[in-house]
Amino acid sequence: MYVGIDLGGINIAIGLVDDDYNIIAKGSVPTGREREFSEIMADAAALINRLLDESGKTAADIKCIGMGSPGVPDVENRTIIAASSFPKIHHSSAQDELHKYFPGVPVFVENDANAAAYGEKLAGAAKGIDNVVVVTLGTGVGGGVIIDKKIYAGFNHGGSEIGHMVLNFNGPQCPCGRKGCFEVYASATALIRQTKDMIASYPDSIIHEMIDHDPDKINGKTAFDAAKLGDRAGEKTVAKFIEYLGIGVLNIINVLQPEAIVIGGGICKEGKYLLDRLNEFITPYFYTDQIPFAKLMTATLGNDAGIIGAAMLWQQQEA
Amino acid sequence: MYVGIDLGGINIAIGLVDDDYNIIAKGSVPTGREREFSEIMADAAALINRLLDESGKTAADIKCIGMGSPGVPDVENRTIIAASSFPKIHHSSAQDELHKYFPGVPVFVENDANAAAYGEKLAGAAKGIDNVVVVTLGTGVGGGVIIDKKIYAGFNHGGSEIGHMVLNFNGPQCPCGRKGCFEVYASATALIRQTKDMIASYPDSIIHEMIDHDPDKINGKTAFDAAKLGDRAGEKTVAKFIEYLGIGVLNIINVLQPEAIVIGGGICKEGKYLLDRLNEFITPYFYTDQIPFAKLMTATLGNDAGIIGAAMLWQQQEA
Repeated sequence: MYVGIDLGGINIAIGLVDDDYNIIAKGSVPTGREREFSEIMADAAALINRLLDESGKTAADIKCIGMGSPGVPDVENRTIIAASSFPKIHHSSAQDELHKYFPGVPVFVENDANAAAYGEKLAGAAKGIDNVVVVTLGTGVGGGVIIDKKIYAGFNHGGSEIGHMVLNFNGPQCPCGRKGCFEVYASATALIRQTKDMIASYPDSIIHEMIDHDPDKINGKTAFDAAKLGDRAGEKTVAKFIEYLGIGVLNIINVLQPEAIVIGGGICKEGKYLLDRLNEFITPYFYTDQIPFAKLMTATLGNDAGIIGAAMLWQQQEA
Repeated sequence: MYVGIDLGGINIAIGLVDDDYNIIAKGSVPTGREREFSEIMADAAALINRLLDESGKTAADIKCIGMGSPGVPDVENRTIIAASSFPKIHHSSAQDELHKYFPGVPVFVENDANAAAYGEKLAGAAKGIDNVVVVTLGTGVGGGVIIDKKIYAGFNHGGSEIGHMVLNFNGPQCPCGRKGCFEVYASATALIRQTKDMIASYPDSIIHEMIDHDPDKINGKTAFDAAKLGDRAGEKTVAKFIEYLGIGVLNIINVLQPEAIVIGGGICKEGKYLLDRLNEFITPYFYTDQIPFAKLMTATLGNDAGIIGAAMLWQQQEA
């Protein structure tokens, strides 16, 4: 039995995972990301112990612990080098902290988006596919690249920052310092902003009613819901968003030619509606009809992907 | 001794290469790219025989033949599936054609940009570096990706088309169908156009004299030569070109985090002058100072890279 930790800015989600990638117990606790790393890991350890109790297991049943974390991991030293949203993380050893509670248990670390991509590859949409890019549309756009069954993160383990691929160098400022990054256009945050901007020009849009005339009630589903009801503002917002997403997806295809691209994040619930339109946009740009191009898919594991991928990091890294 | 064929739109360049990646004989003949593939390969075979004669070798000394070709190869079947500039190439078997002249000799095929990248990795700028992207600035922008010592071309062998990564989706039309591709901004062709456009606003620029007032004499060196002499139009052209190139390079870094990026094509002769300015542009955009980022280099093998890489394809593929 393996422990997967998905360290998020808001919550620490943890699951006990069996050899068949089933989560046999899971739970979460608030992260308190401003705290010392040792305190955060103490809470994680307490949650692991609670999950062990609940499922009638003991620490002796843990084969290893894997953790997906924001920022840049030092995979070899089982350390998080830096994570911008965690002020106290600085070359912080996950192994040292977790060994306080589970001495001798092998510990692995990985970037959270990479761990989630690995989860989708092992047990989700991309099961059985060896070359896949997972693009997660959330607050930003996260990316995880699997090449030849392995997480690909570059020579410095600093990749893959697909969300910070510039699609329009004259575009709006991105917090990363560059302009017109993929995530400025195709994150859930961007979709919400695009919906707000669009309805300002459509006073008759049904969206105004759907959100009780409160723009703060717009979420990543709003424009899709309205579009499906034939609302013009919704349709135009969705069409433009899919164009933006498609431009980024085509860049990924041209650079990486993965066998599949998995779209994750809340928006993946749009399923076939999203994929049909996205395929319609990208297909005319394939540069030959003599070879196959990437299949588009939506993620199937949701937040469990990060837990399962983290739990199974031992398959990627030597103990 | 290995034979490397670099099949170009204008010339077929061929070299005999030894185990230490030295070219012991080389030559070229016009391609005649409109002809039947069998005729093109017959000329290649004749050139191979001439090179063998010149160097006192025989066909029995050939361990294998590798060919880099435009378009998309079927590596497994040693076939070129399609190449847009070669109208008669359509699932054309390099192996069958070359076996007419060199029966039984193992034949390997690869995309030409990938073969050239492999050459730079084996024997050029990126010798000893296992993760490298070679970006060649010519008529277009070609790319070759080496991951973990191996040519990476995606699941369909259709990659990597780095030149067709969109940097500005509102930009000028690219022949590929998309808008604002990397090669629209950073190819040698683009630099020549940018130089022409710039000097139109600078009637006093020394460039007008340098080119005898004939815009057709502008080449990829012109703006650099003028900039080094302190010419304002030259300086502005170079600065803008480096910005464009830098945006593409940063995208490659964010997606692939290679250990090195090698800039190839005629422009790489600008060496340190180019690299210093390119580094100055990209470094502020690295998202952390806690990990190393890609080293920039200029290619060292010139056109020999394609020959050496092709000759050594046997190291990549099973016979």
